[in-house]
Amino acid sequence: MRLSRYFLPVLKETPAEAQIASHRLMLRAGMIKQSSAGIYSWLPMGFKILRKLENIVHEEQIRAGHIPMLMPTLQSAELWRESGRYDAYGPEMLRFKDRQDREMLYGPTNEEAITDIFRAHVNSYKDLPLTLYQVQWKFRDEMRPRFGVMRGREFFMKDGYNFDLTQEDALHAYNRHLVSYLRTYERMGLQAIPMRADSGPIGGENTHEFLVLAETGESEVFYDSQITELTFGDREIDYDSREQCQAVLEEFTSRYARTDETHDEAIFAEVPEERRRTARGIEVGQIFYFGTKYSEAMGATVQGPDGKPVPVHMGSHGIGVSRLIGAIIEANHDDKGIIWPEGVTPFHVGIVNLKQGDEEADAACESLYKAFEAKGLEPLYDDRNERAGGKFATMDLIGLPWRITVGPRGLKAGVVELTCRRTGESEELSPEAAIEKVAGIYAAL
Amino acid sequence: MRLSRYFLPVLKETPAEAQIASHRLMLRAGMIKQSSAGIYSWLPMGFKILRKLENIVHEEQIRAGHIPMLMPTLQSAELWRESGRYDAYGPEMLRFKDRQDREMLYGPTNEEAITDIFRAHVNSYKDLPLTLYQVQWKFRDEMRPRFGVMRGREFFMKDGYNFDLTQEDALHAYNRHLVSYLRTYERMGLQAIPMRADSGPIGGENTHEFLVLAETGESEVFYDSQITELTFGDREIDYDSREQCQAVLEEFTSRYARTDETHDEAIFAEVPEERRRTARGIEVGQIFYFGTKYSEAMGATVQGPDGKPVPVHMGSHGIGVSRLIGAIIEANHDDKGIIWPEGVTPFHVGIVNLKQGDEEADAACESLYKAFEAKGLEPLYDDRNERAGGKFATMDLIGLPWRITVGPRGLKAGVVELTCRRTGESEELSPEAAIEKVAGIYAAL
Repeated sequence: MRLSRYFLPVLKETPAEAQIASHRLMLRAGMIKQSSAGIYSWLPMGFKILRKLENIVHEEQIRAGHIPMLMPTLQSAELWRESGRYDAYGPEMLRFKDRQDREMLYGPTNEEAITDIFRAHVNSYKDLPLTLYQVQWKFRDEMRPRFGVMRGREFFMKDGYNFDLTQEDALHAYNRHLVSYLRTYERMGLQAIPMRADSGPIGGENTHEFLVLAETGESEVFYDSQITELTFGDREIDYDSREQCQAVLEEFTSRYARTDETHDEAIFAEVPEERRRTARGIEVGQIFYFGTKYSEAMGATVQGPDGKPVPVHMGSHGIGVSRLIGAIIEANHDDKGIIWPEGVTPFHVGIVNLKQGDEEADAACESLYKAFEAKGLEPLYDDRNERAGGKFATMDLIGLPWRITVGPRGLKAGVVELTCRRTGESEELSPEAAIEKVAGIYAAL
Repeated sequence: MRLSRYFLPVLKETPAEAQIASHRLMLRAGMIKQSSAGIYSWLPMGFKILRKLENIVHEEQIRAGHIPMLMPTLQSAELWRESGRYDAYGPEMLRFKDRQDREMLYGPTNEEAITDIFRAHVNSYKDLPLTLYQVQWKFRDEMRPRFGVMRGREFFMKDGYNFDLTQEDALHAYNRHLVSYLRTYERMGLQAIPMRADSGPIGGENTHEFLVLAETGESEVFYDSQITELTFGDREIDYDSREQCQAVLEEFTSRYARTDETHDEAIFAEVPEERRRTARGIEVGQIFYFGTKYSEAMGATVQGPDGKPVPVHMGSHGIGVSRLIGAIIEANHDDKGIIWPEGVTPFHVGIVNLKQGDEEADAACESLYKAFEAKGLEPLYDDRNERAGGKFATMDLIGLPWRITVGPRGLKAGVVELTCRRTGESEELSPEAAIEKVAGIYAAL
């Protein structure tokens, strides 16, 4: 993309309403614009990252054998009466009537809707196991929306639901989700720690939240420092293998890690003192096993192997996709701006032309631009007629991991400058070597 | 995908409520399930096609130089008061209050929202031309929703908006959209004819609707039969060239083609009688140029070259993405089911195992499955333990363009059967030759 043809409305001033870094930086970098309280438009660069995260979520869910679909944003109140949640859910649920006076709501979650689909179409245990999921907009009418997309009202979320014949099968689905979530977050450059959590209005006993450590996190967390040394890495996993998924669950949940909701001082005290940590965390996902709560209330049964009807065992599993962008920025920024992890960066490399209009500099930039495109990478070329300082400030603010600076002086010596956003380190390289180096970094992801 | 692990709830019975073929077939093929009146869940195969169409729309819009972003589904009433449309818009607009008693609505379109973004961030003519677009869910509270996704209430739509300094520039944007829409529909296997239309509540003089001819269309259309011989084909186009875009507009709009709203018997009578046609059409898109209607009402001005403020010239441009699926089916089906065009088919090829459990047949199917995946194609393998007749009926119903039938008898002779869904013709080929033939068809798209 050529910046002269893009829409990247960066702000020079720091918006007064933004209290935390991610909110401030998303506004300054022209990623979002508030439409009304807690509701945002996603400007082109913000949307590009949102879509990238959505695609990573899809890829990892499909890899785990889960099936994508899509439910509507608006639901009828009837279904929620069946589960008993229409009255139980608080004023966070946006309720209204349509022109025919039917009671409707903007879905904050979809246990009822998916159970309704399941019971209409699945009759036999032979059709299990089944995990359906979607990535869709949801609404929760927060009393005090704040922190930008971190606690917005309209938000983009992946929600998945497993249907299994037995508790044992459903717990395998639970473990499978935990593994797929670990992979998902790592691909986004995040360490998200599964912590024993409270189930809240979804219900159920087995539940873990995934938390990214960050000073601005809404939850206080307590953990054994050994847990931060675990990585999923590039290990192979067979999602059909109960043993393999169970082993990952045990590896990642056997050390103490809890939010304040479930924290237990007595158990925590058993962790060696030098490994006990207290910090703050941002919740970016949660998995639940809740058994037959919804299937019994809503009559979602299958014919079992013995011919008798059995209510299915269910769980639900969520990733806050729009909120993840805030979490990634909270964990990856400095005074100058955002520092995108390579796995989610909106553009792979920035190209700064120090002297727009200079024949050789322009030609060298064009040639770099085309070379990156030919390698399937997306460069952002700052081809505006601006001074170098302004171009550098914009690149630092929007946080592309790699920047190539091209100027007449360097070109005379046959070099361009390659700068790493995270370390700030620069090196002079031939244009060809710079291309190879950047391409190699992305190829290795 | 292996059918035993997919969620494809095909129906044997024809649903009574479905009045037209696309609605009936989408329900029967397990693509959608009604959630409430005019509101549908997209089951896995339906979602897969929806996503495919969305991606085609994105690719063609980006090719034309238009920039993707995303606006929220919910909007504040305030903005709509500025343009005067809050009161003007009928009961199709879903209005409600949030918990703070603020007046909100579910966006049926986004001229106000995008103009608000524009005026907040763009100040100079130097930042023009600019075309922003999104593909997002919208809601129109139809009095009588019907025909499935063809006239639903919650629907998925691409809406784009151009901002230009002059009328001439804005008309180039109009032409650019017309060209990109022609390409988009052709990639989907559709002939959509641009017809002179009425602008309705959006306003403006210049507007064309794109209509797909189909008996179940909601509009009566009148056209010169020569227009159905035009195709955009694989010609190269430079979207920055006014001449090239203008030439395409002239080529595709110079022959008579109008809906009943703008039909003029006197002009139509000038078309030679043997070329005059009356038919029905489904509207799948519309483009508008409406000048300064919104920019003046909402103060969206830029500083012109002479330093004086100029209200920008705008247009808006829509493609009904969810409705397109209905239109594609209306134009592509027979008594047995859907016939997907290759450009949008959910799976590229079906594999039917005539004798599940037979060692050789199973192995041959597995080998075909892996070979297609290795070529980047997605096969749907019916690996269920069902009789052949049921498997064929399902494949015909869901409409994959190509089917490979594998059975012990053919394998003894070293062949499988390749069947074209559209013609019903079959040929016996070695598995390798069948793979090459199918792969060649998709590579040529």
